[in-house]
Amino acid sequence: MGIDKILIIGGGLIGSSIARAAKKIGAVDKVYVSDKSYAVCRSIERLGFADGVSENSPEFYASEADLIVLCVPPGVMAAVAERIVPVMKRGSILTDVASIKGDIINKIAPLMNSEIHFVPGHPIAGTEYSGPEAGFAELFKDRWCVLTPDGADELAVETVKLFWEGIGSQVVVMDSVRHDIVLAATSHVPHLIAYALVGTAVDMEKVTNNEVVKFSAGGFRDFTRIASSDPVMWRDIFLANRDATLEVVDRFIEDLSALKRAIRWKDGDALLEHFAKTRDIRRRIVDAGQDSPEPNFGRDD
Amino acid sequence: MGIDKILIIGGGLIGSSIARAAKKIGAVDKVYVSDKSYAVCRSIERLGFADGVSENSPEFYASEADLIVLCVPPGVMAAVAERIVPVMKRGSILTDVASIKGDIINKIAPLMNSEIHFVPGHPIAGTEYSGPEAGFAELFKDRWCVLTPDGADELAVETVKLFWEGIGSQVVVMDSVRHDIVLAATSHVPHLIAYALVGTAVDMEKVTNNEVVKFSAGGFRDFTRIASSDPVMWRDIFLANRDATLEVVDRFIEDLSALKRAIRWKDGDALLEHFAKTRDIRRRIVDAGQDSPEPNFGRDD
Repeated sequence: MGIDKILIIGGGLIGSSIARAAKKIGAVDKVYVSDKSYAVCRSIERLGFADGVSENSPEFYASEADLIVLCVPPGVMAAVAERIVPVMKRGSILTDVASIKGDIINKIAPLMNSEIHFVPGHPIAGTEYSGPEAGFAELFKDRWCVLTPDGADELAVETVKLFWEGIGSQVVVMDSVRHDIVLAATSHVPHLIAYALVGTAVDMEKVTNNEVVKFSAGGFRDFTRIASSDPVMWRDIFLANRDATLEVVDRFIEDLSALKRAIRWKDGDALLEHFAKTRDIRRRIVDAGQDSPEPNFGRDD
Repeated sequence: MGIDKILIIGGGLIGSSIARAAKKIGAVDKVYVSDKSYAVCRSIERLGFADGVSENSPEFYASEADLIVLCVPPGVMAAVAERIVPVMKRGSILTDVASIKGDIINKIAPLMNSEIHFVPGHPIAGTEYSGPEAGFAELFKDRWCVLTPDGADELAVETVKLFWEGIGSQVVVMDSVRHDIVLAATSHVPHLIAYALVGTAVDMEKVTNNEVVKFSAGGFRDFTRIASSDPVMWRDIFLANRDATLEVVDRFIEDLSALKRAIRWKDGDALLEHFAKTRDIRRRIVDAGQDSPEPNFGRDD
């Protein structure tokens, strides 16, 4: 099944990037975008990558679309789905881009009917910026997109898979429970830690006369990048993936406490042993094409 | 006082970068490098940025040099200083690049005599790579270099300041105690957290079939960069800056625990308030020229 018309609901970084990619790289005929914000809709019209923009009425183009992609914050996805499902055309597909899958499936699957398909998805791509101006068509190139069909129609899954591959992604299918624990480790907890550390430093900044900013090149600046991601989205992610996040955070605190203990007891051998084992995974990430081998990510060139 | 001859002891990332910069950008006449490793010395000869290389004999060029820069791991700096101080020429200056200053001063200051000067320093620059091949002359450009003279001769301090400015750095003078707490927040604890989290993920990788590597673009890959820095150097830094590191880690764990609690109790407002306040510091770091404004550090271009 080909996709002639696509509706993106939520025109932020991810939604606007999918819209651009569908138009520029994918073989989609018409790309519609809906956003609840007046300003975002005007930006999208100005940027010119959509064939139609509907303000605060996700149902407007929903009856025309072959594929609808929910790109709103996870916390409001179910409410948006509730509005569009009744007008979706027979055989059309609903998908989403949320970084948690179990919670989204629990809330959206019950809203579906036998005429339409729901294929939950998650493109593992992004930047620290938000909004339609921040999007770009190549965002998903060589990045993974996870689909967690949990029993969805095979042809619908294949259609969504081909769509993501068409805009440059590699697609992997997995169970939603597994997705949520793996993403807790690779994305959610790293963000939570970054938000916590940047908060710690902001509080210290009050007594250090701008020195945290000045000397941030020593490592801290890296954390500020991911801690400047969209706050509403991250609030929703942590609340929706609560159990897996807390589980991985607790493992992390145990490991950090072991390092603290080694420092307190001046156990240099324990520190060295730990630090040596973490080099290998960096090389594997670079070898897998998931990061740049350039020193400092190449940013100081 | 000008510097005609400089001796760099330790030809790794930082030492070899200083040597290259002194030759290429600075106005230094002769650049000598000493390293205890046969392989490192041969690499430096091959790379051709030194006027002389001495293997495992830091004292060899020490009597000729106007400025000697200790670039060995912090844990062995005092032992190296003990070997070279007796042969240093009258009026010459010893400096270092260690990321901790109090501990280095405590160990090296007592070795000095009235004929020579010790000006402790710390260039806040680096990459995740190690060794002489990883160095480059522009590493210090637009980065801060902190000097913590703690009473050192003013003319000697001025000479070291001019040297760092000559290779592109901005120099700031501060108290060693303050340096160590500020660097604990901006560098040491961020590295400790990264090492801990990468360790946590490595352990989870054993049960997740390569998925941590595969999906690392969701945030985790950033942590692996700084967790692949030189293990010996970081062991020495944590042991030498033990009290400040533990103090800042404890603040961080308190802040992380508060976020954990908000997640457990589904307190979305508390999460949102925290996440919103951390965006501003990123902008300030970028405005201060200490990081790239490019999305994802520009690495995916």
